[in-house]
Amino acid sequence: MSDAIKPEVLVGVDLGGTKILAGIFTPQLNLLQTVKLSTKASRGFESVVERVSRCVRDAVDEADLTFKQVRGVGIGAPGAVDPESGEVIFAPNLQWKNAPLQKALEKHLGVPVFVENDCNACTLGIHEVELKGRPSSLLGIFLGTGVGGGLMLDGRLYSGFNRTAGEVGHMVIQVGGPKCGCGNSGCFEALASRTAIFRELARRVKEGEKTLLTELLKEGEGITDLKSGDLRKALRKGDKLVAKVLQDAARHTGIAVANLVNILSPQTVVLGGGVMDALEDDLLPTILETAADYAMPGTLKGVDILASKLGDEAGITGAAVLVRQRLKPAG
Amino acid sequence: MSDAIKPEVLVGVDLGGTKILAGIFTPQLNLLQTVKLSTKASRGFESVVERVSRCVRDAVDEADLTFKQVRGVGIGAPGAVDPESGEVIFAPNLQWKNAPLQKALEKHLGVPVFVENDCNACTLGIHEVELKGRPSSLLGIFLGTGVGGGLMLDGRLYSGFNRTAGEVGHMVIQVGGPKCGCGNSGCFEALASRTAIFRELARRVKEGEKTLLTELLKEGEGITDLKSGDLRKALRKGDKLVAKVLQDAARHTGIAVANLVNILSPQTVVLGGGVMDALEDDLLPTILETAADYAMPGTLKGVDILASKLGDEAGITGAAVLVRQRLKPAG
Repeated sequence: MSDAIKPEVLVGVDLGGTKILAGIFTPQLNLLQTVKLSTKASRGFESVVERVSRCVRDAVDEADLTFKQVRGVGIGAPGAVDPESGEVIFAPNLQWKNAPLQKALEKHLGVPVFVENDCNACTLGIHEVELKGRPSSLLGIFLGTGVGGGLMLDGRLYSGFNRTAGEVGHMVIQVGGPKCGCGNSGCFEALASRTAIFRELARRVKEGEKTLLTELLKEGEGITDLKSGDLRKALRKGDKLVAKVLQDAARHTGIAVANLVNILSPQTVVLGGGVMDALEDDLLPTILETAADYAMPGTLKGVDILASKLGDEAGITGAAVLVRQRLKPAG
Repeated sequence: MSDAIKPEVLVGVDLGGTKILAGIFTPQLNLLQTVKLSTKASRGFESVVERVSRCVRDAVDEADLTFKQVRGVGIGAPGAVDPESGEVIFAPNLQWKNAPLQKALEKHLGVPVFVENDCNACTLGIHEVELKGRPSSLLGIFLGTGVGGGLMLDGRLYSGFNRTAGEVGHMVIQVGGPKCGCGNSGCFEALASRTAIFRELARRVKEGEKTLLTELLKEGEGITDLKSGDLRKALRKGDKLVAKVLQDAARHTGIAVANLVNILSPQTVVLGGGVMDALEDDLLPTILETAADYAMPGTLKGVDILASKLGDEAGITGAAVLVRQRLKPAG
């Protein structure tokens, strides 16, 4: 088969603090292949760039393609990103500041690279593929280790003056509430992230409350070493403490959703991230009910609040969408 | 003087729950005249419309103009407003629902009328006149009887899918906090509006705390009958309770500002409303300090947070700007 008739592909990369996920997509955004690699952020910027490009090349190879078929690479990175310059302005969990990610990756890969904030990329992917581009405005909220958000207004990603818009996780909703990783207290993230949920569970266990989670612990593990899936297991077995703590997290998420609906009046709110992926059935009803309680009259009329089905693939999908949007049509 | 050479004017109206303010502006937005009338909302929609048009005609007459010189009337109304249809979708403090304000006023006045949300109008007026149209994105926060907001993104007012964006007063920042007029608790408005400040002062006085405010009361008045200016008087005389309660309100406002900066990344944040107008010097330093504490790294870079100097005139100014923007240039 000559190069000329080999189909072209788009590559989407989700760069996280602990792992890199690369996906190969057809121009119609069908996912052909993924490859995962650890980030090893502590080794520094150059090493991470090298690992990202290795992950991309591995994914191309796994899919039995050649790199010449790659039209471009999109990448969602944590922190504040300038999509124009392709720089990561700052990313605390990678310890990057003004890191020229696009330029460095283009040097390694020799194809056009486009950079976005990771939550923006997830929101873009959900908007384009899951919601078929329909909502004119979309707010994405992602509950995982932390809580992040992405904003689409008038059909386009919105990142504001300092490219930092969508930092919904650090919206304070409980002045004087639990300490947050950011140094403040009472942030949405400190009340509804996986970290917050497990910290609250560990605190209550220490105070003598009972949970089936303690039976799931391996030698030397603590409650905070468990995963979202373990919460689901405990819930299914009727664990009352887990149910209570998750309902609190869902209630706080519902209040945060209502706040954001009051502020932004989006057409659609989509919830994603590891916590939602694992616990949608348990969290969503309370989130919806609380949001309806707290949103101002009229603000929720015709508004959809839903959980994304894209799971882990939201970020790579959005990164591939980015390539499709930013590359001029071939030929 | 023939009609042909009489200069044209724009009229801006600020329609509130208790008063109507109309202003006559030159096309260059210089304010020539204002007239105030009470709203008397309890008399119903038709009566309020009649009073607004009377207020407009009185202002024209006071300025020694004839109504033929009026190119158009802009009006900022409380609640959710659809600027396209000119309807007030709902306005709790006027008890209006789907009220055809534009149509009714055009019938009364015989000139083009344009309707906007009152806080949007204030934000627009501040943007155009006070800030010379410079910030690409602007968030207006107005502390008065309640707390309202207005949002300009990419140089234009943004009201979102349900035309309700900017309802920053009902952002919950203290789950389980003080009751709000909206029925929820812990809203920004329940912590920093004039109503909230006086309620907190009254509560503390009832608990035995001392304040000079009690000396300002007339026969039969309670603390909550006082005005923002009375707070300033008490402060100047060293009133510790007033200082403490105002600092709390300022701190909560700073947290709300940081939340909104984290979510929206605006270029400029402007604070206005009766409470700010009366107490800027006492509130602004704490607001700025707290916002800087709570905003994420990088989000405040190059961002101005300031108090508007337009005071009461912000709303009528913005309403006049609306006319200028929406009317096609004269033949």
